[in-house]
Amino acid sequence: MNSVELSLDEIYQLAFDCLKRAGADDANADAVADTVKRAERDGSVSHGLFRIPGYVATLNSGKVNGNADPQPEQVTPAMVRCHGQNGHAPLALARCIEMLAQSAKTCGIAALSLTHSHHFAALWPETEALAERGLVGFACVSYTPMVAPTGGTEALFGTNPISFAWPRQDHPPFVFDMATAAMAMGEVQLAARDGHQVPLGTGLGPEGELTTDPKEILKGVLLPFGGHKGSAISLMVELMAGPMVGEGFSFEAAESNNDDGGPPQGGEFILAIDPKIMGGENCVEHAEKMFSKLQGIDGVRLPGERRHKLRQDTGPRKVNSELISKLRALAQNSQ
Amino acid sequence: MNSVELSLDEIYQLAFDCLKRAGADDANADAVADTVKRAERDGSVSHGLFRIPGYVATLNSGKVNGNADPQPEQVTPAMVRCHGQNGHAPLALARCIEMLAQSAKTCGIAALSLTHSHHFAALWPETEALAERGLVGFACVSYTPMVAPTGGTEALFGTNPISFAWPRQDHPPFVFDMATAAMAMGEVQLAARDGHQVPLGTGLGPEGELTTDPKEILKGVLLPFGGHKGSAISLMVELMAGPMVGEGFSFEAAESNNDDGGPPQGGEFILAIDPKIMGGENCVEHAEKMFSKLQGIDGVRLPGERRHKLRQDTGPRKVNSELISKLRALAQNSQ
Repeated sequence: MNSVELSLDEIYQLAFDCLKRAGADDANADAVADTVKRAERDGSVSHGLFRIPGYVATLNSGKVNGNADPQPEQVTPAMVRCHGQNGHAPLALARCIEMLAQSAKTCGIAALSLTHSHHFAALWPETEALAERGLVGFACVSYTPMVAPTGGTEALFGTNPISFAWPRQDHPPFVFDMATAAMAMGEVQLAARDGHQVPLGTGLGPEGELTTDPKEILKGVLLPFGGHKGSAISLMVELMAGPMVGEGFSFEAAESNNDDGGPPQGGEFILAIDPKIMGGENCVEHAEKMFSKLQGIDGVRLPGERRHKLRQDTGPRKVNSELISKLRALAQNSQ
Repeated sequence: MNSVELSLDEIYQLAFDCLKRAGADDANADAVADTVKRAERDGSVSHGLFRIPGYVATLNSGKVNGNADPQPEQVTPAMVRCHGQNGHAPLALARCIEMLAQSAKTCGIAALSLTHSHHFAALWPETEALAERGLVGFACVSYTPMVAPTGGTEALFGTNPISFAWPRQDHPPFVFDMATAAMAMGEVQLAARDGHQVPLGTGLGPEGELTTDPKEILKGVLLPFGGHKGSAISLMVELMAGPMVGEGFSFEAAESNNDDGGPPQGGEFILAIDPKIMGGENCVEHAEKMFSKLQGIDGVRLPGERRHKLRQDTGPRKVNSELISKLRALAQNSQ
């Protein structure tokens, strides 16, 4: 893979310029560009600049409102709701997290319903932001049908990621963020682009057959991770990020989607718990016993550790050259 | 397998008599016997009478308090806490569910922290009870170390089940309840007793080798379902049902356990959400669209459906004869 080096500021600016050129206002372009920069910073390449063409496509097609001005509202002392005004999710999330965190610190637990939003990023930015405030965070979103329920051969579920974050003492939070599909679609796309095989069980080809060829899976369907148990969790995400927050299912999002290559409209559910109210002052310190145990086992690594290690490097990041050429054209609006 | 037929009332009474004879008071014996009866009713055999010898052992050894009188307290309008007084969980749960449900109906979301309790049953009784009240329920407990984190070969996590329930229109709730281990220990024990093999990936033998022999796995360790993703979810359960609610981890429960064959002390986390407050009046009806889709796919079955179908049969249940002889002896205290 040919790559070029860009500083984190250059990554931000390139993303910002593409979004502005496509019609986003400063607040929206800033929120998305910041999310993209943080993904590249943490080595989460499939959620970095790789996504900008999709963000731009949705602005160009008019599906997404680049001037959304979402305002969170306090529904009950423990519940925050936000209508995303059909914008990209990052601005709404940036505005909601503090109200959600304050609600959890008052009530011990609180939840956010974000609707009419277009989510195209990882989930760890929102759960990690809660854990950085001393809270336990959980989040999930659905997407567009790409995953067959266990036993089926046609897409019904989104890749439906879930993320969980736990505040740690003297460490960055413990955070996992994973598709409930056997593999995230972005990873399958990268494998197809780079000519890699994927593990058997990742998905089915167009005839419903198991295959290790990511290009065949892109024509077929992904499978849930972990068989019927993962399939049940993916269905839980459909319900939680759909009707429970006042939104539709993946298959409904797909029905109203214009297939411009960017994310359809969807909902997000975020849960925040103050572990000190629930479990007592000592509980974060107590939890360190488990992390010590895990770090003492050969062959076990904590999710999120790689991201947090990469984050310490403030230097430039390698980005695929073709992608950069494409983005520079988008930033000039000469596509 | 030789079996005898018992009516549901006889199942309840046999369980009740065993517990009373071992020192439980009426309230505790009733709550546990009712839980056991409902498990047998729903065909959840590994959580039925099969567990009574374990319940009895913990009463006989003095580890569990058969006269626990747990009282839920309202910590915040959205948070309920209950000290289980070292009793078996069913009485505490029966007393907490209504307060938790009312909190969720007031605040939109609420959580329960149950500590100092001994959980030896399925989780669906508590999540289904919430869904029967129109709420979305989620629950998890940890147990005693039986599962190696992905990459490891020694037990660190419990089988750490999670359960989720969703209220349905004109149907029993949608409920799943599953170990985050590849297989629940009760199922492995039943397979060993009945001479069945288990799927590769269920666990490791005493030398850390993959095996399909449940007897070897009973000498070794279980594995999480779904590889590193299931392992991350199991760790989430350790944190949520442990320090987050003010309890210890599985490995700490094991350190203070007397190995009498019954459940160690542990915590439980239960979440209740009022989907009508969060998602609007229409959301339960809306969700039926997904269940219709799923039920239209050949090869897909909804978790919980088998249980709800078996429940409709109010007739006698077949129970292993050896187990019945053992329980009748326990009920006479002549073991």
